[in-house]
Amino acid sequence: MLDEKGISKAVIARLPRYYRYLGELIEHKVERISSNELSDLMKVTASQIRQDLNNFGGFGQQGYGYNVRYLYNEIGRILGLDRTHTMIIIGAGHLGQALANYVKFEKRGFKIIGIFDVDPKLKGKSMRDIKIQMMSELPQFLKIHRVDIATLTIPKDSAREVADLLVNNGVKAIWNFAHIDLNLVLPKEVIVENVHLSESLMCLSYNLTHAEGMQKN
Amino acid sequence: MLDEKGISKAVIARLPRYYRYLGELIEHKVERISSNELSDLMKVTASQIRQDLNNFGGFGQQGYGYNVRYLYNEIGRILGLDRTHTMIIIGAGHLGQALANYVKFEKRGFKIIGIFDVDPKLKGKSMRDIKIQMMSELPQFLKIHRVDIATLTIPKDSAREVADLLVNNGVKAIWNFAHIDLNLVLPKEVIVENVHLSESLMCLSYNLTHAEGMQKN
Repeated sequence: MLDEKGISKAVIARLPRYYRYLGELIEHKVERISSNELSDLMKVTASQIRQDLNNFGGFGQQGYGYNVRYLYNEIGRILGLDRTHTMIIIGAGHLGQALANYVKFEKRGFKIIGIFDVDPKLKGKSMRDIKIQMMSELPQFLKIHRVDIATLTIPKDSAREVADLLVNNGVKAIWNFAHIDLNLVLPKEVIVENVHLSESLMCLSYNLTHAEGMQKN
Repeated sequence: MLDEKGISKAVIARLPRYYRYLGELIEHKVERISSNELSDLMKVTASQIRQDLNNFGGFGQQGYGYNVRYLYNEIGRILGLDRTHTMIIIGAGHLGQALANYVKFEKRGFKIIGIFDVDPKLKGKSMRDIKIQMMSELPQFLKIHRVDIATLTIPKDSAREVADLLVNNGVKAIWNFAHIDLNLVLPKEVIVENVHLSESLMCLSYNLTHAEGMQKN
């Protein structure tokens, strides 16, 4: 599948990984790297690296390779990490707290400006200096604040209704941890990234079960 | 990429989604479904559904479609969900707690038998009736208990060392939330499923940034 610029989803999904490796190279004070060296490090072919990056204009120089810092910054810019995205978290359970407390998100420009839950016991409590508000306060909050991303860490049964409320109040992107493919039920222009943790565990289970089967044979 | 049975990773990654939709159909008391109806529901082509399932022997009958309960059980079996997998969690922070408290994992046969952390303040505390143990107790624990899956919710810097310890003590599968591609540094026979949450957020950011750009044009 291609996005509006004709760049495949698979390429986009690989960009954060380039970004992570380049960030580590910077930590290790590496200034330049060839596609072959990057290929060794990331265990993808040098040709795939060149192809992926050519989608955005290349960045490499024959005989020099890539300037690590420049490529890191450029990929960061392509990923939109050079701007601030405001974010709210719906669901102040353990997963919501884990995400709220993840300091690196803020470093990457994702600024949490609100946390919401339905549990009255949480009212007035704080997570990372942000007061937990009740869901009934959400519509008013969305009228006052520009929210770029809403993170949903709530059960499947309420996810659709909450997502509709968010979208009707102008939220354009949802990071969804509920076990429902929200992209299939929301208007097409809403950007949805589903994270289905149990599906990842099931893939692990498949591979484990299969490996055990192989050993017995 | 193909696994030992010649089944592509992409097909395997799609199986949990079939399993989820079939489970919902069972909840709604649907007994049989055609590949066309399933295609409408899941927004994948009927031909892909048939191709995916043919990897495992088909399951459908011309003119009847799929028996929902049978297909659900068969996919569950293929995914290894018909057996119990013992699991430990390394890292009792918010994410570790979120995973430990996720009741559905247990329903799917993933049984948490131990939780470990380095923080002495957590010693003796419990999560879901499981006492948090110190990392120093882990080697002894692994000698006594068979652990199928270790879930790592610890920082990147200690992940490699902990993973080596686990593998050297017989753990065969790692569900890794640390920001490192453990599959690249561990022996090939160790099964690793990496979950890089920040990379998913970056894809969302890419799509959001790009959509904003499109609207301005």
